[in-house]
Amino acid sequence: VNQETAAAPKIVDRSISEAELLLAAQQSWCEALVAIGKAFNNGGHAEAKAAAEKVVDALYAYQYGPVLFKPTLAVSPQTFRTTRAGAVAYLVGGDSDYPDDSGFALMGWKDWKVENAALYIAGDTANTMGKVHFTSTDGDVTTVDKTWGFMKDDQGALRIFLHHSSLVYGG
Amino acid sequence: VNQETAAAPKIVDRSISEAELLLAAQQSWCEALVAIGKAFNNGGHAEAKAAAEKVVDALYAYQYGPVLFKPTLAVSPQTFRTTRAGAVAYLVGGDSDYPDDSGFALMGWKDWKVENAALYIAGDTANTMGKVHFTSTDGDVTTVDKTWGFMKDDQGALRIFLHHSSLVYGG
Amino acid sequence: VNQETAAAPKIVDRSISEAELLLAAQQSWCEALVAIGKAFNNGGHAEAKAAAEKVVDALYAYQYGPVLFKPTLAVSPQTFRTTRAGAVAYLVGGDSDYPDDSGFALMGWKDWKVENAALYIAGDTANTMGKVHFTSTDGDVTTVDKTWGFMKDDQGALRIFLHHSSLVYGG
Amino acid sequence: VNQETAAAPKIVDRSISEAELLLAAQQSWCEALVAIGKAFNNGGHAEAKAAAEKVVDALYAYQYGPVLFKPTLAVSPQTFRTTRAGAVAYLVGGDSDYPDDSGFALMGWKDWKVENAALYIAGDTANTMGKVHFTSTDGDVTTVDKTWGFMKDDQGALRIFLHHSSLVYGG
Repeated sequence: VNQETAAAPKIVDRSISEAELLLAAQQSWCEALVAIGKAFNNGGHAEAKAAAEKVVDALYAYQYGPVLFKPTLAVSPQTFRTTRAGAVAYLVGGDSDYPDDSGFALMGWKDWKVENAALYIAGDTANTMGKVHFTSTDGDVTTVDKTWGFMKDDQGALRIFLHHSSLVYGG
Repeated sequence: VNQETAAAPKIVDRSISEAELLLAAQQSWCEALVAIGKAFNNGGHAEAKAAAEKVVDALYAYQYGPVLFKPTLAVSPQTFRTTRAGAVAYLVGGDSDYPDDSGFALMGWKDWKVENAALYIAGDTANTMGKVHFTSTDGDVTTVDKTWGFMKDDQGALRIFLHHSSLVYGG
Repeated sequence: VNQETAAAPKIVDRSISEAELLLAAQQSWCEALVAIGKAFNNGGHAEAKAAAEKVVDALYAYQYGPVLFKPTLAVSPQTFRTTRAGAVAYLVGGDSDYPDDSGFALMGWKDWKVENAALYIAGDTANTMGKVHFTSTDGDVTTVDKTWGFMKDDQGALRIFLHHSSLVYGG
Repeated sequence: VNQETAAAPKIVDRSISEAELLLAAQQSWCEALVAIGKAFNNGGHAEAKAAAEKVVDALYAYQYGPVLFKPTLAVSPQTFRTTRAGAVAYLVGGDSDYPDDSGFALMGWKDWKVENAALYIAGDTANTMGKVHFTSTDGDVTTVDKTWGFMKDDQGALRIFLHHSSLVYGG
């Protein structure tokens, strides 16, 4: 009889959990948006851009390849921002390569609310779809329809590999 | 010495191939949209609805749970169509539960062109993002920004688990 | 201001949960092994074979393609049982195409204990590795080193796509 | 009419390709085994151990968590080597924490042949099962039944997260 010591197995879990990880990742993005605006108020464009670069590096997956990013207000033909530079430009503007970008993060956002319609957890990737309501410092609310795709990287962090945001139709 | 007969291994491949499967699935959706319109011209709303139900059952993943579907022209608060009924209503209208739907497939589409910006193949799921240009019978072109999520089902068919379509910003 | 009704999102979760699903699937396999033996005692080989076919159809993934199955006592050159027929033959013998098979499930097993060393949850697939101790009706214990691979099918059931079992080295 | 420049989409493909990546990864492991033996002949145990550590770091996934590794000749109760140290000890011995290990890579292997029975590509993970024949410098052939699990890491390299090797039954 071969009797080993019974013990709890060691576990590697690459799948994305619905509660913490997925929803926390959404909150991180919204917080980051507001934080970039605060950096702008504190230190002007240079500080905002530094904050945006940090956010993009921490929350998106540009390190690993192109990201599928269609920002809300990106103007054609620069609709899709598959590069890090394009993402940063959209957030803070001031990049002559993206002349139509005025900086979405600099529009004075102070609060947000995420309303997910549905989540699809494939395993180590997941997609979310829903509405996000942004409140400006004036109290106005802008609502967007937003789809995110998250991947879990080798260190266990969630990163955005897909982001499609659009104004509400007829809104 | 244990010498087996060398032979090609048997292979199960659950991953989505970029060329054939993924792009073919996009074409199938566009063809189906035009086909529903033809069914309407041939047999009126009843025939169009039957065609739409067949399309939704063949191309989407409602059999397996809610689908993350944000159609181009869906009006708030019925923005997201996580059920089969909501998808069919969007395509052909005529459903009193979705009073704002007039039937996107019935708007007279005759041709289309898909321009993918980027593809993300996670394995047995994949996302695509790009523009789709629809040409009407009048020759007008409507362009949408479109994100699809496909999953490969147990029979090897690709099914849409996510679909976010939006009008071009400022377009 | 576009204010939707907040509600819990609908969720599709294709990932395998460690506790219930994965460990339950292991228990199902062990229970099935004992049940096939009982069917043999009750109704002879015909009943045992019918039970084995039911087990293989319920717990393995032969419906979707070849399975990577290396049973404990399979004799070379029929080491690998990538087909349903090969799996059934291993469990109950009596198949002239597999003359060395005497039926692993018919060896008089009455109890078992699974000791997982480690689990790797990739997402909608997972692997487990550990020891399984089988107790015969005589009270003898046979220990095997066992690796399983499970996939979650479209109906949400776990199925074995890989099974490598081997006697303890030097045991 | 909104007419973008058509271009080939950018592609991120996380799935494992059957031909190159999967079979190449198996060859890398076999080559590494022989290379560790050569390092031993050249520089003794210290050089062999350094080579083994390099191999384990390059080919296994211990960086990301426990690995499901059941080596061919590992003696119970140290059957499973879920840690880097346990893997290195198995390959080159000389570790007082693993007193039964004499060093599998030091047994004088000069050649190998991999015969895959079947491959299961889940997406960004894949499993292989088959026989591997090792030829020693004396010309003797040892055959093992071997299951590997590979994951594709964020840099696109394949790493072993699972490895179950066993002597042929009755062989």
